[in-house]
Amino acid sequence: MQGRVGAVPGVAAMRSGAFILVLAVALAEGAAPCQLNGLWRNDQDSLMEISVSRDNGDFQGQYLTRVTLSGGCAQISPLKGTQQQLGDGGWPTFAFTVRWDRFSNATTAFVGQCFVDADGKEMLTTTWLLREAAESLEQDWKTTRVGRNIFTRKHTTRGKTLQSLSPPCEDGSSPAL
Amino acid sequence: MQGRVGAVPGVAAMRSGAFILVLAVALAEGAAPCQLNGLWRNDQDSLMEISVSRDNGDFQGQYLTRVTLSGGCAQISPLKGTQQQLGDGGWPTFAFTVRWDRFSNATTAFVGQCFVDADGKEMLTTTWLLREAAESLEQDWKTTRVGRNIFTRKHTTRGKTLQSLSPPCEDGSSPAL
Amino acid sequence: MQGRVGAVPGVAAMRSGAFILVLAVALAEGAAPCQLNGLWRNDQDSLMEISVSRDNGDFQGQYLTRVTLSGGCAQISPLKGTQQQLGDGGWPTFAFTVRWDRFSNATTAFVGQCFVDADGKEMLTTTWLLREAAESLEQDWKTTRVGRNIFTRKHTTRGKTLQSLSPPCEDGSSPAL
Amino acid sequence: MQGRVGAVPGVAAMRSGAFILVLAVALAEGAAPCQLNGLWRNDQDSLMEISVSRDNGDFQGQYLTRVTLSGGCAQISPLKGTQQQLGDGGWPTFAFTVRWDRFSNATTAFVGQCFVDADGKEMLTTTWLLREAAESLEQDWKTTRVGRNIFTRKHTTRGKTLQSLSPPCEDGSSPAL
Repeated sequence: MQGRVGAVPGVAAMRSGAFILVLAVALAEGAAPCQLNGLWRNDQDSLMEISVSRDNGDFQGQYLTRVTLSGGCAQISPLKGTQQQLGDGGWPTFAFTVRWDRFSNATTAFVGQCFVDADGKEMLTTTWLLREAAESLEQDWKTTRVGRNIFTRKHTTRGKTLQSLSPPCEDGSSPAL
Repeated sequence: MQGRVGAVPGVAAMRSGAFILVLAVALAEGAAPCQLNGLWRNDQDSLMEISVSRDNGDFQGQYLTRVTLSGGCAQISPLKGTQQQLGDGGWPTFAFTVRWDRFSNATTAFVGQCFVDADGKEMLTTTWLLREAAESLEQDWKTTRVGRNIFTRKHTTRGKTLQSLSPPCEDGSSPAL
Repeated sequence: MQGRVGAVPGVAAMRSGAFILVLAVALAEGAAPCQLNGLWRNDQDSLMEISVSRDNGDFQGQYLTRVTLSGGCAQISPLKGTQQQLGDGGWPTFAFTVRWDRFSNATTAFVGQCFVDADGKEMLTTTWLLREAAESLEQDWKTTRVGRNIFTRKHTTRGKTLQSLSPPCEDGSSPAL
Repeated sequence: MQGRVGAVPGVAAMRSGAFILVLAVALAEGAAPCQLNGLWRNDQDSLMEISVSRDNGDFQGQYLTRVTLSGGCAQISPLKGTQQQLGDGGWPTFAFTVRWDRFSNATTAFVGQCFVDADGKEMLTTTWLLREAAESLEQDWKTTRVGRNIFTRKHTTRGKTLQSLSPPCEDGSSPAL
């Protein structure tokens, strides 16, 4: 763990006193330097907000997709997942599911890993499966889409949350990511 | 919902009075005819036990894999997920994650759907992603495996649970499904 | 299991000679260790006919899907791929693409492996990606489906080919597998 | 090919004068709006060179991966595939397989689509499956990895080819992408 934390260039860490503090605390506690909690944005401009709530790695949060299978408007939807507990200080892997709230008959699951690059920039590399409902077992073969998303931390002014960043949404319609 | 239940061929349903009763109760209660809760076994002989616990579709349970990336022995691991709430009586889709307890640095997520065939046999068709930890971002490309599993309900004598079906396990080692 | 003799004893120097011997024995018994050429049927009742034509492992053939994204009728479509050349007698892996002939704007690729079980029954376990055309880069995220198919050898009366097994098809329409 | 350019809806093209200009130039030069042939580099610095050789959309080429499952050195490997023939002027989809030459027992297949953005920059968005050989059917479940790569055209000085860009490679070892 010391080697990993020590590998973060001092110059980059200097950008934020808070970050140094986090690293120091992480070092002291032996915790991972890559934290899932907070607000994230992916390459499709979808947003998610994670709160790591339990000691066992379980977390929950909210997801706001900007893209939907139908092209319709999405609602903020609850997510929940789990982060793998690592004893060796590596980058943590995680998985979570999103329950599309009232606007889709599909479900989505993500798996991913949190990385911090040499400049201290956090990145979540994820792969997802989007499962639509089939009307019958014969249609089952074509239900599952696969894709990839990269999330980076979205920095906001104090107090900004996913809720406050969510646009008004007139119509509530189908599948999404 | 009525249309769906009505669509179950009478001849097939006749095979089991209990099944008719279940459907009748489901119809009366407005519940889906395909229930996730209970004990399931997949084509690799892995077991899972699901308890549907919340009105919003969230569920939790336990997973016992028979296969591991390392070939090592697996522990019973907690799963949690969500079932999509459907208003139109179709087969429900779901997604869940498994936190491999202490024997792996990988995480797994499943998406799937529950079907009941003409004979009343329940089947969960699932697709999964198994994410291993990469040591660095450069290794990220090769971390994610994809696969498929079919689960069928495992009927047990009264009181049998996943716990009681679990074999003693001497060594606790790496990734699994 | 005799076919599995292909699991050539690991003496490297003996390899080529031993492999020839295995082939000879297999030939004498009338069964090759695992040959891709011939007629195959999958669990969705789709058919494919492979002709292994080149020493380097390249092959070509024809594919007739029974399922299409649109529900429309499929045409026999050309496939071509490559089998990995293995020096150690293991089960060969392969990959191939199908060019859906005139009835789809999608493309499909399969990867898989050929196995022979203890009873000499051949099985091709495959995973596929089905890519639909997106109208724009913004729609790219949802274009790719993933699935799995198991093929077993379809035994036919002498001279039966995919062509002769193909049903008359009135309408030529969209994506397929 | 003129039909392709002409098929771009006028209203959509109106969004960007630059885009119209690019299309006009492409038309004047007789170039297609999205040609697979040429040299491409992906986000992992792997290279491929495609020669579109047949009227039916079939193509072949060479692939030089920079990443391997084993970490070993890769050889230039032959690829072949097919581009879907589109009548309606959309971006073409394609699929191809790579036969890892002598350094791997794995096979790989890509599916993807070619896009040209408003600035005329070409991009191939691809998803791939990497299949490793399993020693037995029981190990089949864990053989298939999935991932994604974006390729952009690599501009080189006249006469530069994949062959000339290939570094000397001392050791020839295992799986790759």
